[in-house]
Parts: sequence; structure tokens; C-alpha cells
Amino acid sequence: MAIVKPSLAKGTRDFSPAEMEKRNYIFNTLKKVFMKYGYREIQTPSFENLSTLTGKYGDEGDKLIFKILNSGDYLSKAPADLLAEKAATKLIPHLSEKALRYDLTVPFARYVVMHQNDITLPFKRFQIQPVWRADRPQRGRYREFYQCDVDVVGSPSLLNEAEFILIYQEALSNLGLKDFTIKINNRKILSGIAEVLGKPELIIDMTVAIDKLDKIGLEGVNKELLERGFTQDDIATLKPIILLEGSTLEKLGQLKEILASSEVGLKGIQELEETFAYVAALDASAQVLTNFVELDITLARGLNYYTGCIFEVKTNEVAMGSIGGGGRYDDLTGMFGLKDLTGVGVSFGADRIYDVLLELDLYPKQQIAGTKLLIVNFEKALEAYTLPLLFALRQADIAVELYPSAVKLKKQMSYADAKAIPYVLLVGEEEAASGMLSLKNMDSGEQVKLSQEELIKHLK
Amino acid sequence: MAIVKPSLAKGTRDFSPAEMEKRNYIFNTLKKVFMKYGYREIQTPSFENLSTLTGKYGDEGDKLIFKILNSGDYLSKAPADLLAEKAATKLIPHLSEKALRYDLTVPFARYVVMHQNDITLPFKRFQIQPVWRADRPQRGRYREFYQCDVDVVGSPSLLNEAEFILIYQEALSNLGLKDFTIKINNRKILSGIAEVLGKPELIIDMTVAIDKLDKIGLEGVNKELLERGFTQDDIATLKPIILLEGSTLEKLGQLKEILASSEVGLKGIQELEETFAYVAALDASAQVLTNFVELDITLARGLNYYTGCIFEVKTNEVAMGSIGGGGRYDDLTGMFGLKDLTGVGVSFGADRIYDVLLELDLYPKQQIAGTKLLIVNFEKALEAYTLPLLFALRQADIAVELYPSAVKLKKQMSYADAKAIPYVLLVGEEEAASGMLSLKNMDSGEQVKLSQEELIKHLK
Repeated sequence: MAIVKPSLAKGTRDFSPAEMEKRNYIFNTLKKVFMKYGYREIQTPSFENLSTLTGKYGDEGDKLIFKILNSGDYLSKAPADLLAEKAATKLIPHLSEKALRYDLTVPFARYVVMHQNDITLPFKRFQIQPVWRADRPQRGRYREFYQCDVDVVGSPSLLNEAEFILIYQEALSNLGLKDFTIKINNRKILSGIAEVLGKPELIIDMTVAIDKLDKIGLEGVNKELLERGFTQDDIATLKPIILLEGSTLEKLGQLKEILASSEVGLKGIQELEETFAYVAALDASAQVLTNFVELDITLARGLNYYTGCIFEVKTNEVAMGSIGGGGRYDDLTGMFGLKDLTGVGVSFGADRIYDVLLELDLYPKQQIAGTKLLIVNFEKALEAYTLPLLFALRQADIAVELYPSAVKLKKQMSYADAKAIPYVLLVGEEEAASGMLSLKNMDSGEQVKLSQEELIKHLK
Repeated sequence: MAIVKPSLAKGTRDFSPAEMEKRNYIFNTLKKVFMKYGYREIQTPSFENLSTLTGKYGDEGDKLIFKILNSGDYLSKAPADLLAEKAATKLIPHLSEKALRYDLTVPFARYVVMHQNDITLPFKRFQIQPVWRADRPQRGRYREFYQCDVDVVGSPSLLNEAEFILIYQEALSNLGLKDFTIKINNRKILSGIAEVLGKPELIIDMTVAIDKLDKIGLEGVNKELLERGFTQDDIATLKPIILLEGSTLEKLGQLKEILASSEVGLKGIQELEETFAYVAALDASAQVLTNFVELDITLARGLNYYTGCIFEVKTNEVAMGSIGGGGRYDDLTGMFGLKDLTGVGVSFGADRIYDVLLELDLYPKQQIAGTKLLIVNFEKALEAYTLPLLFALRQADIAVELYPSAVKLKKQMSYADAKAIPYVLLVGEEEAASGMLSLKNMDSGEQVKLSQEELIKHLK
């Protein structure tokens, strides 16, 4: 067996114990909130039949799906002429029938359709699993990363939208974030605007352009609108809409006038009003609406997909793209033949949230799950005392280790240090004889003498 | 977009909320024990460079590794002659440079070597992640399944072996298992036996044969020994060794005599004695050694790999293969050029444990993480009362849902039933007016009237 100098596959990452602790902290905080709102976890397989995934993400998406080579004699069914031509794309269905999950949405749709007789609607699920994309790896973009999705299907009630606003607010607050914005829009308002301009067929062009307001400014948006088939008159009409100011209620009031002639536009406004009314009825203090929610009619996000409310979340404490988003889609499962099942969902960008918490130093200072105490191993003879002690501490549910051999103290202290173990117990001959043990706080350096009973109480 | 009738890829599974609850119960129970013993979680990527995995699992294993097709023009580097010949095996390195993780051991070895400058020895890690094998799917055998490994590298101390015995005992007991056997053997004892027979070169043949004692009986083992180059004399010598009886101490005593002339054999006995002494020093009640540990010198398990103690765990309550196993390996990382790093580890067969707990009905009766209360939605007008209540209950950290629309009571009750929600709150006009709420226990059918304050207390 030749020795291989090991390396990671491009665009993938190992997670060390310290990183896993932080990642689990995020996932557990999110899960707890999802479950409080009645969402339950599901998991789907890492690979799906290629036919389940192909055609769902557009041509560009299809190229980014990782295909798995059939096992065994994978070339047996490959047409010789395609091989001779090296017709890579055409050969794929002959060489591969499975592919790695590209997102959690399509597998969820498949899940709902396949299990439609076992699930009770409304079906509220969350799912936290890795997905894979053959993107060119770059800073902050990986080929394997986790998605974290929460969706409910089978309920048209806007209470669900309202609860997603509260879920975002509660989950991000629980993670220690203080200043973030939950932007909300409605696809029907965008349709209404295109209708008012008399160009409903250009809705995509319009939204793609105004979605860039943040990045390219009003001048840039106008330039792009002109290129995409709009006139100077349209731009004049659009300008006050794009630059809408004031409180959410004021914005809605102005929009109502502008969209007075558009049925779909007014429906969109009504949906937002009802959503906000739900949030206000739930949260009587009105803190959430006032401090965290912003109506943003330039928000589009995969417009083709969403049919009602659209969400996007940004932190204002760190320069970072969106850390979450979602919306309502009226036909998630249509791609698998189950029509008219409405759904709404949001996702959390776990990798970005990870970086945000790191930058803001918001991770718990104390390890949540690591070893709490290291018993120093001074000499083998003392194990007759330290081993039963070790056992007793673990019986009391304390995470504790005895250093497994009597090496130099310095080495054992480095070990405690590297693992961020907060306490070290020094048991020498004197301590073993008296039963009074020296507990050292690794952070403060402080040292106290305790009986075994007091030690357990101290560490609990 | 053509509509595809959805199906799962062969050998893969979806996990429903009820299944995830059970799986998480197992994983969380195991994790808690691992962490109490000082093990910390790591994760490695789902795919590795093909070169990292190839050649580590034997020729049969190599065939079962799922290869990922290179993205883009994957045929550009494929030699035309190999394509013309349809030389599937020879073409693999030209079409694929990545492959799905086949187990957690090789990625762990890669991790240790790549991060050797960042980790402090002894390095104690656990890892719970899916692995993939292109096996023919059959009942209980999947192409995607979870492995759950706990290992320590860099410590030769047999305290580690002793602690793995305690980890098995504690973890399986915490899961509710009562009658299981932790079998233990030592590779050096097997070497000693082969030495005593004067056939050290036949150690693999010997152990492969005697490992089958359970399945084919003594007659079968003897027949196989003869076929594999042993004589009737050897069989006569082996018989009392294979059929060793009595307590663990008695067995060790007899083995000591039999292996008196073999240095390596005596070393193996000494290692077992020291391991047992550690367990006895830890657990003064001697319950663990007496009730759960059995010396089994027919135990081999991937002998080429292990160099010291070998473990295997079986439940005696259900007919099922082993639910765990492991051992010490003195050269895990040699395959990646880092020599002489000793390690010892065990794994838990999570899928089998899942089935065992199901068969023995050992899962918690109450949902651990699901919705605790459903508030019935009788009519929209009552939401002015139920929404603030919903918010208040969630503020008190209770998992609660308001049915999102005022549909028929029967439908709402079915929803509570399907989600196994233990309580339902019936808030009609009278209840909203009086503030005394009707709480129904879905299990007993019992109904009580409570104020909001009492309700929170009741559900906490």
C-alpha cells in the first residue's frame, strides 16, 4: 500500500472538537426554537435518483449537481458512439443514476409526495443536513455545507408567516444577536407593480433590476431597467415605489394608493397586513414588529419560486450577506405530480451565522459539553485512590478524565489547557491520605481544598 | 419539466419525525456518555479524495466505494483506447477523483495526520456520521447508514480499554438494555496460540476458523482447520483452548499454563489482566466485570487490523448480530505516513440498536421533543384571546401550537393525535371570557379547568 500524503477534497472541511462545539451550539439553539413552534425533524438520504434532481435547478444548477458513478461495470450500457465522441453530458444518464442532494427543498417535496398517506397536514418539518454543489470553491463558499430549513405544507394561514417572523426573532436573539432586520415583501406586490406599469410580462426583469438597489444604487437600477425594456416613464413611476420611506404602516398606505388598480397588488398588501396583524396579536409589546421587521419591496429572492410572502434576514452588526430567507410557494410538490399543496418556509444560513457569532464573540465562554475536570496522574500507585474517585464523579454525571498515565505534570496541564478543561484536581500522597483534594481553577489559578462530597457539589 | 413519480434511491431511507425522535434519543444517549468520559465530537467531509480511500479496504472494499463523477467535461482526460475497450475499472481514476466516505476510521486517520500539529495527544474523539457502501441492499443492510465511533490515539494505557468496557456498559444500560455481553479477547493471545502450535504463519487461518465456532460448531471448526493446513495433533491441542470454561479468572489461569512458552501470548494475558484490574479498581462493586464481561478467545474481528485487545458486544435479549465492537490498533496512521501512533476504539451499531430498542419497546413513552400542547382554533374571533396565550406559553418555553385555522374540531383532534401531542386546550367563548381554560389529556381523556398561570405550571 503506497503511502499517500493526505489532503482534503477541494471545497470540503474537517470540523475540530472546538468547531463542532460551536456548530452544535448553533444547531441546538435553532432546533429548540423550531420544536417550540411545533416543527419536527426529518432526514432524507444523501443521494437521490438523478431523475429526482435533474431539471429542478435550471441548466446551471444541473451542472453543479455531483453525480455518482454507477457501481460495477458502469460502462456496459454506455453507447459506443457517445464514448467515441466523448459526449460527456449526453453520457451522464448512462453512467450515473444517483446524485448528491443539492438542496433540502426538492428532497422535501419528494418526501411529502411519497409519504402523503402517512403525514397529517399541515405538516411542519425542519431539516438540518449537508448539501453538495460542484461550485468553484472560494472564501466562504464550500462544496459541502449545511442547510437548515423549516417549512410547513398544507396550511394557507398567514399565522405561519407571522410565526416565521417570531422564529427568526427568537432564534437569532437566543444566539445573542441584537441588531438584525427581517425584511419582508410579497410576490403579489411585485406582480401588482408590473401590472400598474402595464408590463406584467416583464416582472422578472423588473425585480431582477430593483433587487440590486443595495449593490448598484438607483442610477444603476434605472440603467438596467432601460436595458431590460422599460421606458423613462416607467422609471419615473417606479422611483417613488422603490424609494418608499417611513414606517411599515406608512409604506403600506402609500403602496395601497399606487396599486389601487391592481387586484393582485392589493391582495399582496392585504397578506402583509394580515401577517403583521398576527405578529401584533401575538406580541402585544410590539417589540418584534418595531425593532426587527422591515417592508422592503425591492426584495425578490428566487421570484419564480415564491408566490406570496418573501423573507430575508440580515445582521446589522457585521458586514455579511443575508443570514436567512424564505417565503411562500403555492406549488412545491407539483414537480412530483401532487398539485395545489401550499407551503411556506424559511432557512438559516448556518455557516454565515457561525462566522457572525465568531466575529461578535458570542459563543458561550464555558464549554457546554467538554470535560469539566482532569484528575492529574502523579504516580501509578495513587490510582488505587484516583480510580474509584473517577468512577464516583462520573456516577454523579460529571464529565471527568484521569490522565491515562503518570507523565510529567507539565504535559498533563498542557492537555487540560488544550482541551479547555476548566478544573484540574491534584491528588498526591497527602491528598489521598487526608481525603482533602486540591482543586485548581484553570482560569483564575485559584486553588481550594475540598472533600470528595464538596467536590461533587462544587462541580455540579 | 416532466413529472417524475418520485422514489428513493435503492438502499436509502427517509427518516420521519417519529423515527428521528428515536434515532436522536439513541445518538444523544451515546454522546452524553462519550462526553462524560472526555471524548469530543469531530466531523469529516462526506467525500474524500479517491486516493485517500483506495487500497484501504481490500479489493472487495474498493469495489463498494461510491465514486463521484468529476464535474464539467469529465471525459476530457480519459484515454480513447480505454473508452473504446469500455475498460470500466481502469478508467475510474480518469473519471473520478472523489469518493463517498466508506467508514469513519480512514477519514479519522487522515484527520489525525493532517492536524497532528494542532491536536494534543492523547486525542479522544467520537464521530457519528453516515457512510456509504455500494452493497446489494437487503433487509437490514443499507447503502447509507450511520457509524458511531469512539477512539483515542496516542495513549498506550490500558485504562482506555477499561473505560471502553465501562462506556459500553453505561451507554447500553442508559438505553434500557439489561442483558448484554461485552466479549473481549487479545490479538496477542491468538498469536500465542498459533506460536504454541508451531504455526505462527497460519494465525489468520486459525482465527478465521475458530471465529466461526458460534455458527458452525466444533466439528465445523475442526473440519475447516484441517482444510487450512492444521493437523489432527493441532486440533487436539486447540480443543481445550477453544472450549475453555469457567470464570474469566479461571480461563486466564488455564491460558497462562497453555501459553507458558509464548512470550507474546503471556503479554496478551497480562494486558487482559491489567484491563480487568482497571475495571475492578474503578467499579468497586464488581458488577460490570461479573455481569457483562466475558473472555472469548474465539473472537477475532478483522484481525489484521487489531494488535491488542479486541471487543465485541452482543445483546442477549433479542436475536441480533453484534451491536458493537472494536479494539486496539498500533498503526492506524501508518497508511498516511505517521508511524507508531497507537490507538484504541469501539463503535456502536446504531441501526441494530435502533431495532433492538424497538423490539424490546424501550423508547421513552412520552415524546421528548415534540409539541406538548395544541390550542384548538374554534373560530377566528377567538384568536384575539388565543394568540397572546400562545405567545405567553412559548415565552415560558413550552412547545405549543395553535391550529392555524378554524377547521372542524375532529380534524384538529386528528392532527394532535397524529403528532402524539399529549395535551389539547379547548378555548371557546366561555373559556376566553372566564379565563378558565379546559385542558384535555389526550392519553387519559381527562379534562381539567385551569387558569393561564396554572396551565403553565401544569405543563412545565
